Amino acid sequence: MQFSIAQIAVLLGGKVEGEAEETINMLSSIQDASKGQISFLSNPKYEPLIYTTNASAVIVSNDFSPREKLTTTIIRVNDPYIAFTQLLEQYHAFISFQKSGVEEMSFIGSNSKTGEGIYRGAFSYIGENVTIGENVKIYPHTYIGDNSVIGNNTILHSGVKLYSNSKIGDNCVLHSGVIIGSDGFGFAPQEDGTYKNIPQLGNVVIGNNVHIGGNTVIDCSVMPTDSTIIGDGTKLDNLIQIAHNVKIGKNTVIAAHSAIAGSTEIGDNCVFGGQSGVAGHLKVANKTSLGAQTGLGKSVKKEGEKLFGSPAINLSQFYRSYAVFKNLPDLSTRLRQLEDKMLNS
Amino acid sequence: MQFSIAQIAVLLGGKVEGEAEETINMLSSIQDASKGQISFLSNPKYEPLIYTTNASAVIVSNDFSPREKLTTTIIRVNDPYIAFTQLLEQYHAFISFQKSGVEEMSFIGSNSKTGEGIYRGAFSYIGENVTIGENVKIYPHTYIGDNSVIGNNTILHSGVKLYSNSKIGDNCVLHSGVIIGSDGFGFAPQEDGTYKNIPQLGNVVIGNNVHIGGNTVIDCSVMPTDSTIIGDGTKLDNLIQIAHNVKIGKNTVIAAHSAIAGSTEIGDNCVFGGQSGVAGHLKVANKTSLGAQTGLGKSVKKEGEKLFGSPAINLSQFYRSYAVFKNLPDLSTRLRQLEDKMLNS
Amino acid sequence: MQFSIAQIAVLLGGKVEGEAEETINMLSSIQDASKGQISFLSNPKYEPLIYTTNASAVIVSNDFSPREKLTTTIIRVNDPYIAFTQLLEQYHAFISFQKSGVEEMSFIGSNSKTGEGIYRGAFSYIGENVTIGENVKIYPHTYIGDNSVIGNNTILHSGVKLYSNSKIGDNCVLHSGVIIGSDGFGFAPQEDGTYKNIPQLGNVVIGNNVHIGGNTVIDCSVMPTDSTIIGDGTKLDNLIQIAHNVKIGKNTVIAAHSAIAGSTEIGDNCVFGGQSGVAGHLKVANKTSLGAQTGLGKSVKKEGEKLFGSPAINLSQFYRSYAVFKNLPDLSTRLRQLEDKMLNS
Repeated sequence: MQFSIAQIAVLLGGKVEGEAEETINMLSSIQDASKGQISFLSNPKYEPLIYTTNASAVIVSNDFSPREKLTTTIIRVNDPYIAFTQLLEQYHAFISFQKSGVEEMSFIGSNSKTGEGIYRGAFSYIGENVTIGENVKIYPHTYIGDNSVIGNNTILHSGVKLYSNSKIGDNCVLHSGVIIGSDGFGFAPQEDGTYKNIPQLGNVVIGNNVHIGGNTVIDCSVMPTDSTIIGDGTKLDNLIQIAHNVKIGKNTVIAAHSAIAGSTEIGDNCVFGGQSGVAGHLKVANKTSLGAQTGLGKSVKKEGEKLFGSPAINLSQFYRSYAVFKNLPDLSTRLRQLEDKMLNS
Repeated sequence: MQFSIAQIAVLLGGKVEGEAEETINMLSSIQDASKGQISFLSNPKYEPLIYTTNASAVIVSNDFSPREKLTTTIIRVNDPYIAFTQLLEQYHAFISFQKSGVEEMSFIGSNSKTGEGIYRGAFSYIGENVTIGENVKIYPHTYIGDNSVIGNNTILHSGVKLYSNSKIGDNCVLHSGVIIGSDGFGFAPQEDGTYKNIPQLGNVVIGNNVHIGGNTVIDCSVMPTDSTIIGDGTKLDNLIQIAHNVKIGKNTVIAAHSAIAGSTEIGDNCVFGGQSGVAGHLKVANKTSLGAQTGLGKSVKKEGEKLFGSPAINLSQFYRSYAVFKNLPDLSTRLRQLEDKMLNS
Repeated sequence: MQFSIAQIAVLLGGKVEGEAEETINMLSSIQDASKGQISFLSNPKYEPLIYTTNASAVIVSNDFSPREKLTTTIIRVNDPYIAFTQLLEQYHAFISFQKSGVEEMSFIGSNSKTGEGIYRGAFSYIGENVTIGENVKIYPHTYIGDNSVIGNNTILHSGVKLYSNSKIGDNCVLHSGVIIGSDGFGFAPQEDGTYKNIPQLGNVVIGNNVHIGGNTVIDCSVMPTDSTIIGDGTKLDNLIQIAHNVKIGKNTVIAAHSAIAGSTEIGDNCVFGGQSGVAGHLKVANKTSLGAQTGLGKSVKKEGEKLFGSPAINLSQFYRSYAVFKNLPDLSTRLRQLEDKMLNS
């Protein structure tokens, strides 16, 4: 990425004061910036930094009036934070979609189709009867099983594994090591103490605008006519476990190391903390919030509940009880003293 | 898969009533089924669904007597649930073992042998002196280190990594991202605050009929003459951690995100809930049950114990204590009131 | 590995008594050893085993005086345990660095350089502008993104994924499935309930002598001029989650399944138990110890604190409270009885 400060000002609808022709090749925070980088000043608390920054340009508010001499060029805009975010997004889009073409030593099976703007990295594997949309980026070592379907503008980072019959929507990002469609954990106990496999024959369906973090695993459904489902806009962090037949709604956010057991249905706009767990066969209402390490063992019917603890109870109830828990030895002593007094009275 | 209803009836030893020549290409639940699919009716509660199902065929009990007109063909058998399970298994076996042959751009080292019915996917890597049994399926991007041995009918899904000297039995399924034989976590603290590597030189031995879920990691043993061991018939879910020198018995079932620390020995037929953890150097008796998120810090000597909590205690004891925990603020208030009364009496 | 007992004695500066020319090809514990293997006797408790061992040689102390007839050759040294550890390390180094050269079907992009002693396994992928030091071992299916830098003597096991701009120091070991530099989990909630991506543009910097266990994930920093940082000598076990902008100091040891949330700074020489979690935006002092499954929600200012529980409190305070927790039903009953007495008195 190489732009002049003037070009960036045009992009942002801003006005330059200083060296408009200097070249910018990176974005940075105002304290870490060096020559060739652009930053922004939004919070007045950080104003002193603009007089010492090494940034070549700083985006400032239209009404910013310097109290000392500036050594950096400024670009005036309405809202410096939003303007900087726009730049970040432009840069991110540029980075994310710069790869294209088909590298040698990549594999594609019969009857599989890829749209325009495809990137197929070396050692990527596309099975048979696969349909892939436009502008999809398939990094090296990605595996796409037979009969899978992938929408437009989706990125599969190096080492993603899609089992057969997976369906992934548009604008999704699947990070390295993500596994979609592995067998669910279903075994029928036999009289001799062994377990018999319950065949897992279904698939996984991922909506649009879904983020799936590194090494997260989503199992396929049991039956071939059912699916494990992740709704539009849902964001899953790294190392999450989603068991067979789970349905997750829209715009639900789940932090790292969480686990949802089989057949549970999670609503829309829920927020789950890291290392939280939800038992199987539950229904969890929209906007439910689980604290970190919470273990939810019951369905949640009312929207917007905040839960904590293992097993999970109401968040504020937990904290009130935990406050007493910390003093249990004192409580125990006081009870003993009362008993002694009572005995002696 | 394409069979006529008549062919399926022969397979199940059942009797057709209706269109015996219609073609079936998929299995389904009675409520989700559509034309070309077969389902079953076992629980009388679901009988109403058979009058409205779109399934082309439904497996029913010999003594089923319809109370309304049927629009679907039926196959009568002794036990519809068992018959349907047989079909699921046939279908699953068909799917699981349909790949065969050696795809181009796969690697095999010197002195390595593979049995009949092998599938070696593109970009799979087999090191030197590896011995692989019959009918083994090695999906793309699988890595098999030097001197490893794999039994018959075992499936290694895309991206499995076996370090050198791994031994895997017959009829195992290792899902994508499984790691077998990585270094155990052993470091000796030095006087200057740094840590020195304790070399991890052993291997991992997996029995027969073992299931290992996606992204599960099993570390090798410390010494080259010892092994980390997973017994026959044991089922490990996704994202599980098994540390060095752990021994797990037969037919033990461990749910996702659980972790067993170094040198611990787990018995046969145990059942561990998700996100449970077991500390190092413990012995855990057969048939021990750990609830989800339980943290076991002591050996378990008696068979069949049910434990819960972190640190783990007896399950029912935990629940009785937790019931009081929820009311601790009330308990605390009542104690204060008694103290006040006592003082004033 | 094949050496005579005499050669091993020279290496260790020891003195042989017995068959000096016998060939040793493996190390073992004294109870498990068989012919061709070498073991050691350090703890006098195990002396009886030396009279029955099948080891071809046993390393003993200079002052060892057998009370029975020996059937094994002995090597006398000052400290048998240290001598055996030296052998283990030699063997480990031999095993770890025996691979070299470039296997066919490996990929390297333009402007990328590798040092002497490189191993580039089949199906490994090195992007553009990558700089790799001497004696680096890159196993099959490893992915190294553009502009990455790797120091000397570092081992990347099969299936490691480094996103672009990663920096890895000298003498590091990254196990299979490790992901370095995936996007941090940052999303801005919008008024319509959806989330907008906050672009994650930074990288990860790993110091020297760092161990990273299988399937551990370390996210990149948000800003391109900042980094997620893992300090020299730090050891991370398997399946750990390190979020964006986390900084971990030197010689900190973190056990499996732990998670550090975004922007948290962890000091030097900390020890975290398995499945522990640390919330975001905290500072954790040097030498902090977290028990297994602990959930730390507050910064730790004082060095050397030992914490336990979820949420974390002082370790011994937790255990005192937990001792009372186990008897809460009894406590509750006794309180009720006191109340009754009080009422009736």
